[in-house]
Amino acid sequence: MAGLFITLEGGDGSGKSTQSGILVEWLQNSGRTVVVSREPGGTDLGLELREIVLHRRGEIAPRAEALIYAADRAHNIATKVRPALERGDVVVQDRYLDSSVAYQGAGRVLGGDEVRGISLWAAEGLLPDLTVLLDLHEDAGKDRLADSRTRYDRLEAEANDFHGRVRAGYLQLAAAEPDRFLVLDARDSVESIAAAIRARVESLPTS
Amino acid sequence: MAGLFITLEGGDGSGKSTQSGILVEWLQNSGRTVVVSREPGGTDLGLELREIVLHRRGEIAPRAEALIYAADRAHNIATKVRPALERGDVVVQDRYLDSSVAYQGAGRVLGGDEVRGISLWAAEGLLPDLTVLLDLHEDAGKDRLADSRTRYDRLEAEANDFHGRVRAGYLQLAAAEPDRFLVLDARDSVESIAAAIRARVESLPTS
Repeated sequence: MAGLFITLEGGDGSGKSTQSGILVEWLQNSGRTVVVSREPGGTDLGLELREIVLHRRGEIAPRAEALIYAADRAHNIATKVRPALERGDVVVQDRYLDSSVAYQGAGRVLGGDEVRGISLWAAEGLLPDLTVLLDLHEDAGKDRLADSRTRYDRLEAEANDFHGRVRAGYLQLAAAEPDRFLVLDARDSVESIAAAIRARVESLPTS
Repeated sequence: MAGLFITLEGGDGSGKSTQSGILVEWLQNSGRTVVVSREPGGTDLGLELREIVLHRRGEIAPRAEALIYAADRAHNIATKVRPALERGDVVVQDRYLDSSVAYQGAGRVLGGDEVRGISLWAAEGLLPDLTVLLDLHEDAGKDRLADSRTRYDRLEAEANDFHGRVRAGYLQLAAAEPDRFLVLDARDSVESIAAAIRARVESLPTS
């Protein structure tokens, strides 16, 4: 049985962890060996790098930050993901290179193409067999916010704007590679999303 | 007065620190403001990354290691070197991208061209005004070793082989950019090397 590399993408709160858990359980019940990973922080080296990027005081130069994420990716793919795929396991991973491209692109400092190029070099060109994008319409966040507040301040508007750009970046990536991506509306029910993912995984040529 | 970026390259034991100290003192006596840096570890972020690369137990995937060095470089150049050059200071730095190319190339895992490409992306294309290569003939190390031992074991032979490849890589880089490089024989006297460096710095168009 060939290995399978499945990644989950989407903004915070889009339900990636929930769907990952359901998918992993179903795969195990189907007799597959599953390796769960995430980026950043899928390895012990990655945890040290994640700590530096996410919890460090003081600014990190944008290119340095992108390169630290890429280093995390290189180590995760070389030491954890590729060996698992070579054993024939299924790797279910929270975030991969599409996150880097969508988030860096939304930050408007570095170009998406160069970030993608460095990611692909880091990973020696490995692309997932399937990328599930849990697409969260920006209004969903806005609606929840509107429940508790009567008006938006500038920071909230900027945050909404940023999330809108991340979402647009994700949708653009999905449109460019329709065979790799499965785009699902994150507002649908947990069970209907899980069923759609299962159907797509079952249809994969390598599974 | 325009800023000047001077890097020192060469193997361990080639005298970089000694020459850096003499050069810095001379520049200060000439009225220049000098910023001393090094890679890896020229910044606080760099120190954390250096700690990970140099003192960590366990293997680091080769691409991850190269990307961590590049991240160190990106942060050092963006937050320390470029601001200093913009103020008109002189930056004297122990090791820069030539180290990455020469050492990675000698390790024979990654190609020198791709390592150079990532370094240049990290540094937004910044090249030194002058790179002093303290060239240590491989026999110098061999001679010292021969004094204390009667024969070489395999590890020593491999180490010699590695240093020979690093040296060859450095000399190739210097040959490709003769205007940027000053190649000096590390076996010459400290004072004659220092004088040669001073003469070259005085002849730089921007000094």
